[in-house]
Amino acid sequence: MKDFVFQNPTRIHFGRNAMESLSGEVARYGKRVLLVYGGGSIKRIGVYDAVMAQLQAAQAQVWELSGVQPNPRLSLVYQGITICHEQNIELVLAVGGGSAIDTAKAIANGACYDGDVWDLFEGKGSNTAVLPLGVVLTLPAAGSEMSNSSVITREEDMCKRGRSTPFNFPAFSILNPEYSFSLPPFQTACGIVDIMAHMMERYFTMVEHVELTDRLIEGALKTVINNAPIVMEKPDDYDARAEITWAGALAHNTLLDTGRIGDWASHKLEHELSALYDIAHGAGLAVVFPAWMKFVLPRGGAKKLAQFAIRVFDVPETFGTEGAIAAEGIRRLETFYRSLGLVTTLHEMDIDQSRIPEMAERAVRMMGGKLGGFVPLDEAMAQEIYRLAL
Amino acid sequence: MKDFVFQNPTRIHFGRNAMESLSGEVARYGKRVLLVYGGGSIKRIGVYDAVMAQLQAAQAQVWELSGVQPNPRLSLVYQGITICHEQNIELVLAVGGGSAIDTAKAIANGACYDGDVWDLFEGKGSNTAVLPLGVVLTLPAAGSEMSNSSVITREEDMCKRGRSTPFNFPAFSILNPEYSFSLPPFQTACGIVDIMAHMMERYFTMVEHVELTDRLIEGALKTVINNAPIVMEKPDDYDARAEITWAGALAHNTLLDTGRIGDWASHKLEHELSALYDIAHGAGLAVVFPAWMKFVLPRGGAKKLAQFAIRVFDVPETFGTEGAIAAEGIRRLETFYRSLGLVTTLHEMDIDQSRIPEMAERAVRMMGGKLGGFVPLDEAMAQEIYRLAL
Repeated sequence: MKDFVFQNPTRIHFGRNAMESLSGEVARYGKRVLLVYGGGSIKRIGVYDAVMAQLQAAQAQVWELSGVQPNPRLSLVYQGITICHEQNIELVLAVGGGSAIDTAKAIANGACYDGDVWDLFEGKGSNTAVLPLGVVLTLPAAGSEMSNSSVITREEDMCKRGRSTPFNFPAFSILNPEYSFSLPPFQTACGIVDIMAHMMERYFTMVEHVELTDRLIEGALKTVINNAPIVMEKPDDYDARAEITWAGALAHNTLLDTGRIGDWASHKLEHELSALYDIAHGAGLAVVFPAWMKFVLPRGGAKKLAQFAIRVFDVPETFGTEGAIAAEGIRRLETFYRSLGLVTTLHEMDIDQSRIPEMAERAVRMMGGKLGGFVPLDEAMAQEIYRLAL
Repeated sequence: MKDFVFQNPTRIHFGRNAMESLSGEVARYGKRVLLVYGGGSIKRIGVYDAVMAQLQAAQAQVWELSGVQPNPRLSLVYQGITICHEQNIELVLAVGGGSAIDTAKAIANGACYDGDVWDLFEGKGSNTAVLPLGVVLTLPAAGSEMSNSSVITREEDMCKRGRSTPFNFPAFSILNPEYSFSLPPFQTACGIVDIMAHMMERYFTMVEHVELTDRLIEGALKTVINNAPIVMEKPDDYDARAEITWAGALAHNTLLDTGRIGDWASHKLEHELSALYDIAHGAGLAVVFPAWMKFVLPRGGAKKLAQFAIRVFDVPETFGTEGAIAAEGIRRLETFYRSLGLVTTLHEMDIDQSRIPEMAERAVRMMGGKLGGFVPLDEAMAQEIYRLAL
């Protein structure tokens, strides 16, 4: 186990009545609120009205910044910062999923930084304060509701950059699993894949003696896997939605990092895929993660992959060699993804090999020449993983 | 799953070099520090000197309050509060295990309360502020280093009262597993039993649909069970100590409460045992918990006990009926406790049945007539559990 520092100060209000806490939370921070959201979905499911009623109860004055898109854009962040400065905003409140939250995080940090907020994402500057940030979550997937990270895309060159800082932890997050009842099945499925990927990126580490966090991750993965078919079958099953919602927050809240080093190569390889082909992040991960596993299996990954197969997918220890057990675990993961209605090959997404060199080059270059920690990848290896995904 | 609010703001510095963070942490809060500890053990293992060096580096002025005993006393809390007032203390720093930390928590709260600090424990008053509290942990057991609770005993009538409040979360805790290397085997064993009890009190709930937290608890329990024989055999095994230390903090930090209601009857029954017979809390729990399990098994507890047996102690699902599987799990738990060198019956502690009615009466009365939530116990049932422990 490696030495670590752990702190997560976010206050979580979880459950059917969680929204009732919003007015009290807002009142702690001030009366001038910037509301950040996407478009119509939060209005369709009634969350917008519920939020407004709470803000009214808190006697708050509200400025709205809507139009957040998937892979949220820097230009909207600039707009939000301008509103913060001009209106003396005291609380930035995100309503939505990861894109709305990440936008709000960038605004809350950028409003307290004298230079260009993009500097923060490029590591060229740092802020020493942040506006208070609140969240009402409608889509369990990205885990941003309890995480220290934010990912923003600069449109002009589609440059996507993440930033992790304690200033990104929301002050509070409202999690009502009912808000995910009306998600389209595809979005539910992509969320499940993303949540599991956050756990698996941390799971596959070369750090030894991490039994506690291994077992916590395994338990969280099994919970998501067991509850996924329930919500796919019955979208308004509260208890199954609740298990997935809480698992999604814990997946990314840095607890499961403690004492270990994650890999994150699959995430990076998927980001390039999303950028070029405009596919959903979760859908891309369902293709990339099994391919990554197949690549690392014979390169030192068999032992951990076999442990994953046995403990998460119940492959019997008597199934065969360590390698055979590991391969069976990958097969069961693919079968699970397909049971969610997702595909597990690039071919099924009508993506061919033509741009593999370009994606591999971008993914590896962005990381300074080595991608991932479980098996560090160079460009040729990254290409090989994309080809295994064909 | 029940609605819940969760927040744990404690900053954890974990590992071999964790102490290096102390001077920086102290500097955040001020230069006037009250140091709270027990006696010679922190001096013997060099922790006292290391703390003093850090305090010096932070240019802190230090007042010392030593003499904390197991089942920490109210009189020492009063002394600490007086020092805080007279010396304008800015940080209360506990060095030790649960007793030192709980004393420091009571002092930090009491110093910000105008009335008698005991009011806070009796629910007759409340504070609206608290002095910053820091911890250097030397004994993983009580979990107070990351918990919201504090237990203090009033000597005059040996009245033991706990209080849970967000003001009890330490601002920071320094956890170096090396500090537990020199613990006597009996203390290590008692710590392990206490840590597991904190998990099991939460595990045995009648709340349904708590799969995620069930599985997190099971994983944490398995980790402790797997690492316990290693530290009993080789007390300076860093990695095994690290697993137990981090598990001990997570056991009690309220994460494993989320969405569920714990039982805590075994803890209460043990407190009466400790109070009358002056036995160690962990040693008492090793006797009481299996007896409690035997009592609840035929009274609605078989299903959860069987799950515990299968998932934590690897009892095969084919072992027999649900009841037989559950009973085998209890047997394996007792075998585990005995492998730590502990006894599992009152008889082996030279305790007979003579004071059972008195203990049952006190335990149940303190809880207002019903003890525990998994199977609510009246006085006769509490007596029966003590008798099952004979």
